[in-house]
Amino acid sequence: MGFTFEIEAEAGAARAGRFMTPHGTIETPVFAPVGTQATVKAVLPRDLYEVGASLVLANTYHLHLRPGDTLVRDFGGLHSFMGWDGPMLTDSGGFQVFSLAQLRRITDDGVTFRSHIDGAILKFTPEYAMQIQHNLGADIIMAFDECAQPDDYDIAQAAMQRTHAWAQRCVDHHYQHGNPDRQALFGIVQGGIFQDLREQSAHFITSLDLPGYAVGGLAVGETKADMLATLSFTVPCLPPNRPRYLMGVGQAEDLVEAVSRGIDIFDCVLPTREARHGAALTRYGRLNMGNLRFASDSEPLEPDCTCYACQHFSRGYIRHLVKAKELISHQLLSIHNLAFLIRLMKEMRQAIIQGETAFAGFKSQFLADYRSMVK
Amino acid sequence: MGFTFEIEAEAGAARAGRFMTPHGTIETPVFAPVGTQATVKAVLPRDLYEVGASLVLANTYHLHLRPGDTLVRDFGGLHSFMGWDGPMLTDSGGFQVFSLAQLRRITDDGVTFRSHIDGAILKFTPEYAMQIQHNLGADIIMAFDECAQPDDYDIAQAAMQRTHAWAQRCVDHHYQHGNPDRQALFGIVQGGIFQDLREQSAHFITSLDLPGYAVGGLAVGETKADMLATLSFTVPCLPPNRPRYLMGVGQAEDLVEAVSRGIDIFDCVLPTREARHGAALTRYGRLNMGNLRFASDSEPLEPDCTCYACQHFSRGYIRHLVKAKELISHQLLSIHNLAFLIRLMKEMRQAIIQGETAFAGFKSQFLADYRSMVK
Repeated sequence: MGFTFEIEAEAGAARAGRFMTPHGTIETPVFAPVGTQATVKAVLPRDLYEVGASLVLANTYHLHLRPGDTLVRDFGGLHSFMGWDGPMLTDSGGFQVFSLAQLRRITDDGVTFRSHIDGAILKFTPEYAMQIQHNLGADIIMAFDECAQPDDYDIAQAAMQRTHAWAQRCVDHHYQHGNPDRQALFGIVQGGIFQDLREQSAHFITSLDLPGYAVGGLAVGETKADMLATLSFTVPCLPPNRPRYLMGVGQAEDLVEAVSRGIDIFDCVLPTREARHGAALTRYGRLNMGNLRFASDSEPLEPDCTCYACQHFSRGYIRHLVKAKELISHQLLSIHNLAFLIRLMKEMRQAIIQGETAFAGFKSQFLADYRSMVK
Repeated sequence: MGFTFEIEAEAGAARAGRFMTPHGTIETPVFAPVGTQATVKAVLPRDLYEVGASLVLANTYHLHLRPGDTLVRDFGGLHSFMGWDGPMLTDSGGFQVFSLAQLRRITDDGVTFRSHIDGAILKFTPEYAMQIQHNLGADIIMAFDECAQPDDYDIAQAAMQRTHAWAQRCVDHHYQHGNPDRQALFGIVQGGIFQDLREQSAHFITSLDLPGYAVGGLAVGETKADMLATLSFTVPCLPPNRPRYLMGVGQAEDLVEAVSRGIDIFDCVLPTREARHGAALTRYGRLNMGNLRFASDSEPLEPDCTCYACQHFSRGYIRHLVKAKELISHQLLSIHNLAFLIRLMKEMRQAIIQGETAFAGFKSQFLADYRSMVK
């Protein structure tokens, strides 16, 4: 197989690893910026390289609708279409079909929905989700799953069972019609917040012997305590020699907690969405840059940050940009917020390599700083 | 004086020069991107350096209202506030007061208006326009003038006379309270489209012996033929050893026509505004990038352009970004459009240095290409 995962160091459940892909090696733990429509909003590829991004996500649902996955294929795939030459990941479209589209009908065969763009009635099946992701050409592709309400047992169980059947069909289609040496199919474990369901799901999904596994169906409305508890009993059911991906999680404290429970890969729109809302993410919490208290502040967003925004601009200037609704506020805050999360991942990786005490110290210090929050 | 202007070469009325300022030398003819609110919309300072920008304009009216010129002064002036270390120019606020604000009253003393942001009633006088520009700290500052309807003789004459009185007051204030070694005050010639008024105005304004002169009151609704005719009889009234600035003009063909009539400096929001409307400027005309015909076009915006957008992205990708309303479409199109106009100025400069025949050939070839327009 064209994908290998090596663990360099462990600190408790946390791991520092390397995942080799056809577009380069991803050092884990890693945070992936989200480029929903084949662009990380307001951030150019050269800025992604500069902030140290090593994995970029794009959304299958959005790209299927616009510009169309066959068009992207004709441009040589996502990497060449969007000018990002590093590793990429596409989701399966499942989550968006359930959250964005106007849902029509779920059957064992697939999901029928209305496009949120033009109202067209469309249908995703596991096979079709594979075919679209083959056209898009990301290094990591995801099985089509049903993402359901996580805290109702019967609903979670039914969605899990469907997810298992769909995963098998994704595997069959991908290994028959895809190119597993160029695209690694990850399975997704479901089961809501219920330990027995998560164990059953991990047992089934890992039996498919895939190059990586995701914990799905979290960060969708359950409490933080439920999310962390679910990770605590789910991650140990995953094989240690495969990367583990927690989908859609991007709050700094959640990243730290999840890494300490053995998660390797994350993605989230949070840093770029917060940027567009005028917020800077820092070790001491979230700064609302529209606030008057920053008007004459000549400090950078974060004094120890090496990103372009922090090296060249003051909080006072960025506050002006936010108030004046200037486009470069989105660029500068997105660059900083991504740099912040990516640096956090690198710091955790370094601490894991230093050993269990170093990582535990890093974690408790970071969480104390982060929760102290500049008010 | 801290500003010197050298003419390197002439080709007919066209000139290639160098204007030395405290923040570096401006090679003319030059096109200045507009950074209205202390940012060129969607373009970071590093992108401005990369596309070869050497002079950036900011608007006195906007910055006085938000964030306030005294705040900018406290940050060390515009250069340090916005992270642009090259030469800068601020307008006088006059044009915006007449075009954007809700105008209240014009007297010989000044202009009373309502802020378009919060409705506050404010007053600009020539002295106050100088004081604000001293706080902003641009290398080139402009006299406060009255910009009036250009094709009504009586209105144009009255505005010209007021402009002269105000220019004298600007000079008095600047040389008494300002720092002429750090900030060059340019005078503005008015007089609408009338030759006798322009001659009178040039006579008076150049008698003030300033380091540069602008032709004001054009590109405000008169015909193109009137604009060019006005330049043809106004520019010869300006001293050859001072830079000549045509305010607010940025269409490629107008730049070529005006350079051939002896203009050295231009500014315009056009390239960045067109970018935000999804248009690419090219030697073969304006491309509406939302057009379906670009959907699967794998060529760059302009095949011979060396800008970041053209080096890394296809028309098909940029068309997708425009249709999907993605922010980086503004960034990429703004970078390209600025690169296009700045390259045009450099090409004209080179042709002027090569001599009259070369420049005439460049001009006629460019205008033929440009008017051929890809439909």
